Amino acid sequence: MTPVRSAEILAVGTELLTPFRLDTNSLYLTRHLNDLGIDVRSKSVVPDDAEELAYRLRVAMERVDLVITSGGLGPTADDLTREVVARVLKTPLAHDAAIAEAIRSRFEKRGMKMPEANLRQAMVPAGARALNNPRGTAPGLWIESGDRLVVLLPGPPRELQPMFETLVRPELEKRAQGRKVFRRVIKIALRAESQVEEIAQPIYSRLADAEVPIETTILAAPGFIELHLSARSDDAPVADAALDQGVAQLATALGSSVVSTDGKSLEQVVGDLLLARGWKIATAESCTGGLVAGRLTDVSGSSGWLVGGVVAYSNEIKQQFLDVPASLLAEHGAVSEPVGRAMAEGVCRRLGADIGVGITGIAGPTGGTPQKPVGTVVIAVATPHATTVKTLSLGGDRPTVRGHSVIAALELVRRALLADAPA
Amino acid sequence: MTPVRSAEILAVGTELLTPFRLDTNSLYLTRHLNDLGIDVRSKSVVPDDAEELAYRLRVAMERVDLVITSGGLGPTADDLTREVVARVLKTPLAHDAAIAEAIRSRFEKRGMKMPEANLRQAMVPAGARALNNPRGTAPGLWIESGDRLVVLLPGPPRELQPMFETLVRPELEKRAQGRKVFRRVIKIALRAESQVEEIAQPIYSRLADAEVPIETTILAAPGFIELHLSARSDDAPVADAALDQGVAQLATALGSSVVSTDGKSLEQVVGDLLLARGWKIATAESCTGGLVAGRLTDVSGSSGWLVGGVVAYSNEIKQQFLDVPASLLAEHGAVSEPVGRAMAEGVCRRLGADIGVGITGIAGPTGGTPQKPVGTVVIAVATPHATTVKTLSLGGDRPTVRGHSVIAALELVRRALLADAPA
Repeated sequence: MTPVRSAEILAVGTELLTPFRLDTNSLYLTRHLNDLGIDVRSKSVVPDDAEELAYRLRVAMERVDLVITSGGLGPTADDLTREVVARVLKTPLAHDAAIAEAIRSRFEKRGMKMPEANLRQAMVPAGARALNNPRGTAPGLWIESGDRLVVLLPGPPRELQPMFETLVRPELEKRAQGRKVFRRVIKIALRAESQVEEIAQPIYSRLADAEVPIETTILAAPGFIELHLSARSDDAPVADAALDQGVAQLATALGSSVVSTDGKSLEQVVGDLLLARGWKIATAESCTGGLVAGRLTDVSGSSGWLVGGVVAYSNEIKQQFLDVPASLLAEHGAVSEPVGRAMAEGVCRRLGADIGVGITGIAGPTGGTPQKPVGTVVIAVATPHATTVKTLSLGGDRPTVRGHSVIAALELVRRALLADAPA
Repeated sequence: MTPVRSAEILAVGTELLTPFRLDTNSLYLTRHLNDLGIDVRSKSVVPDDAEELAYRLRVAMERVDLVITSGGLGPTADDLTREVVARVLKTPLAHDAAIAEAIRSRFEKRGMKMPEANLRQAMVPAGARALNNPRGTAPGLWIESGDRLVVLLPGPPRELQPMFETLVRPELEKRAQGRKVFRRVIKIALRAESQVEEIAQPIYSRLADAEVPIETTILAAPGFIELHLSARSDDAPVADAALDQGVAQLATALGSSVVSTDGKSLEQVVGDLLLARGWKIATAESCTGGLVAGRLTDVSGSSGWLVGGVVAYSNEIKQQFLDVPASLLAEHGAVSEPVGRAMAEGVCRRLGADIGVGITGIAGPTGGTPQKPVGTVVIAVATPHATTVKTLSLGGDRPTVRGHSVIAALELVRRALLADAPA
């Protein structure tokens, strides 16, 4: 059996070379290949062009044990992967009766006659093994050529993923000879990337030089940072223990800004804390316009701990639905700590929640003043015992300010829940 | 001057070969290169590995006029692009005093001393021209080698984009010899991909065979479809006229489900219609949990036509804030046309809006029943003259159902605004 240590991924399709589409299959495939201990050496996007595809395929086959292609298996004249692979491997294309029958019966089940064009999909390189596609007409193909393995998968993720998981991964698992990759992720809210780097850098240099070396990658978005730790090993318990230790060291150093070390999202962590506490939450949003409630309701089961929310864009709504006094609005303006506080406390009271969050700010691009420039955002969190209010100065364009505000609101709720934990 | 017709993009960085990161610079670069008439033949991601990068660079230089790399220009030992390019071009690396000085003064301006490591960034292939980087320490490099052009750009998009626009694009424009690409986009809501294909297919076959051939690409997401039309030409007015005609033919055939032909988003179109009408909108959301209001407030200036909204997750909020009668909830259930209607009419009345939208549904994965399975979503739109109510059966997981519901709600608002247009 051909041992497999290295792979290259070729995404086939001219549409993937336009400014509108990204090949995302490669992320999915990379995750699985890494899990098995197969190193992805490179990935490329290739147009529906026989000569170009043939060239890239030859280049890939020279350099890695396994080449996976996605796309180009359809019934039209643009779909060239089968033919080009046959040409590169110097094997003839042959009609596969079983594939033709499977496609024909798929059409029949839907009460349709198979178009002639689909017969192209039954012409496969001699010696190729068909990979059944329950979600489409294009079968995948598994081809062994000398000490190289070439796997052809369909382009649509909903066809590619189940085919890979059920038919390809188990076969690769038998052949994979590299050390598997094990991973952990630490999620951190409301810390600057440079702050996190400063704290984490000495630890991850140490981890990189440890007996089981751990690699750390930092992914930063406005307000939210993920540290990805990975270790390669053939010994799962050893890798797990090393990673757990690494995670523990980093989590201790980073302290209370760590949201989760088990992959949970910030909104899921907030939901869990509310559930544990037996509390319900309500939201009062101005500049985020419903996005905080939208994020909380991403969590399945959120009806157990979310009462609802008010999108209070106008001052009238702030008064009428949240009991914000007109005098506060007049005196301090809609974007001010007293108004944020009144929104959080008002939504709590009016919706009968235990904890309320109020957000009011200037997302831009217009509406800023010298005193309150674009990016000024007030976030208040009210609990039965205290209300905390914070004013943030956020950078970036409108979507960035809004996105950052959503994370800040969720994180301040999380911190309030922790600070207000029952004795 | 080297004529440039074809390009290949190499994104350099091991982190781009993990399951977590995508190279998005290539989309940006492709758009600009296509605009200039330069064809992107292929794009690849290459690890921080000298041997691999050298190989890929040689392959690319054999096949295209222009190779653009992104990444690998930093000051650390991982950053190999400069060295590898020098090796492949067989030119020595030389210290560039001007680059060193620029980096040093960048640090000085921030009151810092330049670390020794940054001097690496001043070692460049002999004959390379530095591209100034006002947003970072890594200068880009412009290298001509025989009839090939190699352009090295930094990896971070906020550094790459201004550098490309100000220093690279104008130079390429002088050399680009291909026909430029001109584009249009038609946005369509609430039509199945197959329906759109059936209507559009005969038209875009005709357009593909026209004197100025127009290529059409369909991008489909749940509830929303984009048709991208592109034409290659050296004559802008001719291409524009052909595209305008193609857009007009498709828009006529697709009728009222066309949201825009000028690139505007659905929420922007809704905002424009509200503004033109002088109406204000309010939202009452259950299963979408604030996402419809969130989408509307993505539009800058939405405070001119959005009053606010209520996220009515619990039955109590539906009664208290939206005046949904308890008897309706008891008799028909929260997910029902009478309740959807009452939510839309109630939010309109209570928030003093002219048009209201109510959304109630079962996003899953739990909560479905045989009568009302997961994906059942009721959307109601109330205007002063009529309330329309629709029940949809949507497929997919929780985020898909919610996303599709948001588009459906915005589209039904758009249609109500059109149907209710002043005489």
